Amino acid sequence: MVLLGASLAAVASLLIAYSHPVTSLGFETDCSAFAASLALENSTIHFSQHVPAGSNLTFPDNPETCTRPFQLVPVDICRVVLSVATSSRSSTRIEAWLPQASNWTGRVLSTANGGISGCIQYEDLAYGASLGFASLGSNGGHDGMTGVPFLNNEDVVADFAWRALHTTAQVAKSIAPQFYSQNYTKSYYLGCSTGGRQGWKSAQSFPEDFDGIVAGAPALAFNNLTSWSGSFYQIFQAAGSDGFPPMPSWPSIDDSILAQCDALDGAEDGIVETATLCNAIYRPEALICDSSTTNSSTCITALQAGTIRTLFSPLYGKDGALVYPSLPATPGVAQLANAFYGPAPFLYTVDWYQNAVYNDPSFDVAKLTPEDWAFAWSLNPGDSNTWSGDLSAFRDRGSKILHYHGQNDGIITPLNSERYYDYVSRTLATPAEELDDFYRFFRISGMEHCGGGPGASNIGNSAAGMGASLEPQDNVLMAMVKWVEEGSAPDTVTGVKYVGQEDQVPGAPPAEGPRPVEYERKHCRYPYRNVFEEGEWKCV
Amino acid sequence: MVLLGASLAAVASLLIAYSHPVTSLGFETDCSAFAASLALENSTIHFSQHVPAGSNLTFPDNPETCTRPFQLVPVDICRVVLSVATSSRSSTRIEAWLPQASNWTGRVLSTANGGISGCIQYEDLAYGASLGFASLGSNGGHDGMTGVPFLNNEDVVADFAWRALHTTAQVAKSIAPQFYSQNYTKSYYLGCSTGGRQGWKSAQSFPEDFDGIVAGAPALAFNNLTSWSGSFYQIFQAAGSDGFPPMPSWPSIDDSILAQCDALDGAEDGIVETATLCNAIYRPEALICDSSTTNSSTCITALQAGTIRTLFSPLYGKDGALVYPSLPATPGVAQLANAFYGPAPFLYTVDWYQNAVYNDPSFDVAKLTPEDWAFAWSLNPGDSNTWSGDLSAFRDRGSKILHYHGQNDGIITPLNSERYYDYVSRTLATPAEELDDFYRFFRISGMEHCGGGPGASNIGNSAAGMGASLEPQDNVLMAMVKWVEEGSAPDTVTGVKYVGQEDQVPGAPPAEGPRPVEYERKHCRYPYRNVFEEGEWKCV
Repeated sequence: MVLLGASLAAVASLLIAYSHPVTSLGFETDCSAFAASLALENSTIHFSQHVPAGSNLTFPDNPETCTRPFQLVPVDICRVVLSVATSSRSSTRIEAWLPQASNWTGRVLSTANGGISGCIQYEDLAYGASLGFASLGSNGGHDGMTGVPFLNNEDVVADFAWRALHTTAQVAKSIAPQFYSQNYTKSYYLGCSTGGRQGWKSAQSFPEDFDGIVAGAPALAFNNLTSWSGSFYQIFQAAGSDGFPPMPSWPSIDDSILAQCDALDGAEDGIVETATLCNAIYRPEALICDSSTTNSSTCITALQAGTIRTLFSPLYGKDGALVYPSLPATPGVAQLANAFYGPAPFLYTVDWYQNAVYNDPSFDVAKLTPEDWAFAWSLNPGDSNTWSGDLSAFRDRGSKILHYHGQNDGIITPLNSERYYDYVSRTLATPAEELDDFYRFFRISGMEHCGGGPGASNIGNSAAGMGASLEPQDNVLMAMVKWVEEGSAPDTVTGVKYVGQEDQVPGAPPAEGPRPVEYERKHCRYPYRNVFEEGEWKCV
Repeated sequence: MVLLGASLAAVASLLIAYSHPVTSLGFETDCSAFAASLALENSTIHFSQHVPAGSNLTFPDNPETCTRPFQLVPVDICRVVLSVATSSRSSTRIEAWLPQASNWTGRVLSTANGGISGCIQYEDLAYGASLGFASLGSNGGHDGMTGVPFLNNEDVVADFAWRALHTTAQVAKSIAPQFYSQNYTKSYYLGCSTGGRQGWKSAQSFPEDFDGIVAGAPALAFNNLTSWSGSFYQIFQAAGSDGFPPMPSWPSIDDSILAQCDALDGAEDGIVETATLCNAIYRPEALICDSSTTNSSTCITALQAGTIRTLFSPLYGKDGALVYPSLPATPGVAQLANAFYGPAPFLYTVDWYQNAVYNDPSFDVAKLTPEDWAFAWSLNPGDSNTWSGDLSAFRDRGSKILHYHGQNDGIITPLNSERYYDYVSRTLATPAEELDDFYRFFRISGMEHCGGGPGASNIGNSAAGMGASLEPQDNVLMAMVKWVEEGSAPDTVTGVKYVGQEDQVPGAPPAEGPRPVEYERKHCRYPYRNVFEEGEWKCV
């Protein structure tokens, strides 16, 4: 039975399928035969394979750098693996995870990538399938976590920039009716980080592809982001060993951020609701040792305070042009950015500059200059910048986009998402009250890059980030479904803080069994800020 | 009778002298004879002249551009006018206004200049003399409000940068004992704007000159300030007539600032206590007309919102180096900056670049580039930058400095004062608790450039800005006296808001008679912020 326009209650009931899988012999047979009958332009269908619920699917051919050797499959699916030629010298590998018809909601879901991969996010396919979406993902046009395949092949770059996802969206719309003998109802997208950027790229350039887009922590202004990511190594190199805060002192940075900023939102709870306010007043100089405590792990030298100030400053380049806004001054960010960006020139920056910008694997990325940054931005390899503010076509066809960004994101600064929202507002000459009709941006306090962190960061943006329920107020994907299908837009997004989540390894799957809830918090849509007044959280 | 180490109560009683002048025949005779006996190196004594209290002294030879044709003299003074050669091709004109011995507190006070003048601030001499200081001021090495005398004469530039004040301080210390036959006790300084910079320059480079410095709204990082001042014309030129908000809409900018920021400090009272917090969140995009109100004086176009955003952004230059922080996002600032900096290349910027930087009166300042900005900074004419953070000599000799800056200052951004404080903290490797020993910076909410504005901005920094009393908590100059002479430093500065002061013409003398007080407010020392919590203002 095909569920078209399934009610939200019916969708919610699919959670049951997560723990009580249903199999069907007909489904198994149909799936195996599907590869032979599937007709897709420019495509090679590798195989279709029935995967029973509860299987731990392994991917022996998947590059190790993708760090996805296996995936638990929560519901019965028909797994279809194919490749689509995207030009004479490029192609993208796509997987479709198709729930059996009785579990299908009529919806198709495209997912995408992270970093500069190269890696199908199987966990997102599993999540989408478990929610009744015919769920597709691609390798973004190349395999593995490196950008080496970009070298001398801008078609591979274009796949990464936009074409793999655009292709996936088209395949989704073609494969679903062929498999279910019933057209899809709505086309959705879910992605974060590079996936967030890819979702935004779609809204900017391919407004027909999706009815609803959920785009998290997007890598917008991508070439500038890449330059900025590479600048931290230079900051720490310039600081030298004297100017680099010793590791034992780094937790003190978080302490000083909270000491100076935690009360800005009216609640001293370890969570900074609005990072940009903390950036405005945070003073690492408060950590400088006074004359009585020159040798302490909780204070630093003036030179080191200068390094921390630079770390929390925006990056400007040639002729004073903004390259990228500052890291957010929120707990955990300094250490995360240091771990990610500090020890060596950032891998993605190296790969991007060597293979996509300069086509020169010997190029020394440790010596990037403002001239290089400006060049990469203007070169815009594969049209990867993703910085158009003109969403008029997307708006006019009635599509919706939900944008979120963790306020404790030390990998892609959430301050850039605010900048983009304001840029869209100016480009469309539309104030926030009217952008609300199709574009809503939520600042998620206490969320790190795409999830995790000390706050109520579980908003259903992934299986690992599943919130309190599948109800739209608790789940950004189901909120998007409700917005698209019922016209009811989310005013807030409620996140869950689970007990002990701050100790969870980033990216790890959620713990088995129910997780005890510590608290929930509503997150406000920009430009509203969350403040605690008179005993409750309010969007002001 | 000479009052050495006069008690503060005695000082306060001098207010009586303001309204009940006392004259002395001996004083008149002594004064007239003083010019002939005065011995000062490299000096020409023009005259000494007794001026009775209540006189309206005129200055027929004073350049019209100084806009100071006369000055009411509140107490009996001996006015001494002299010139000091500062090099073979430069000199500075100095006036000393010496109260009669019975009114003298033993203190000497140097005052200085504004803009790029050239103009003795007689009002400050009158204020200082009325408080019992032997008060001196100079023309800063050239006459009038323009910088034309700088042309091809860096000695005149050096006078403006530091030498005229250094000379004044020396003359003060020499003239007082010759006039009173008694040595001075302490040497003070009071100045704002360029005067604030000159005070800071003294602390940085001539730590012996003053025991106590009150430096307001300082033009620190002077060459960059001058470049920044000149950038606004370029912003508005680039915006063109379409991008320039129409005049009727400018008050809406203030309204939107208050709508977005007034509650940040806990009190919706029309006063933004901490400008930098508002800068962090202020969105001119909120003013963009929605689809139903495209023709309104209270909304603007997207292009115009972009102009306002640029107006409230920091200026960066060559290779991304910061030129100057943003204007503060506080009421009145946009209009003030527009009026000052918008209609034509800013006069001081023109004068400075043509005469002090390039020695080329034909240089087109409308076309300044980041290269020019960087050149001016590195050229540093006359050592005018005033950006040393090393105050160790000043600190070590026991001198004190009180720095204040209005949060509604649209001429010199108060955000630069925060930047300087933090720079000093790093340069001296000293956290705020220990800087407090000799350097305290107060953010004065609701104060425009050196005074005025909608808030409790009367803090005794000038006669026009006289607060509730001469008690040190109400008067920054008397607070400095108490700090220097009793070792008791001000934790807060209390300002007065007078009824109707927002309608007062900037720079005009205070109204006659008592002014009705609307309210008083304590201003916090940086990095504390003023917040209204549980019914009272607190420094947090």
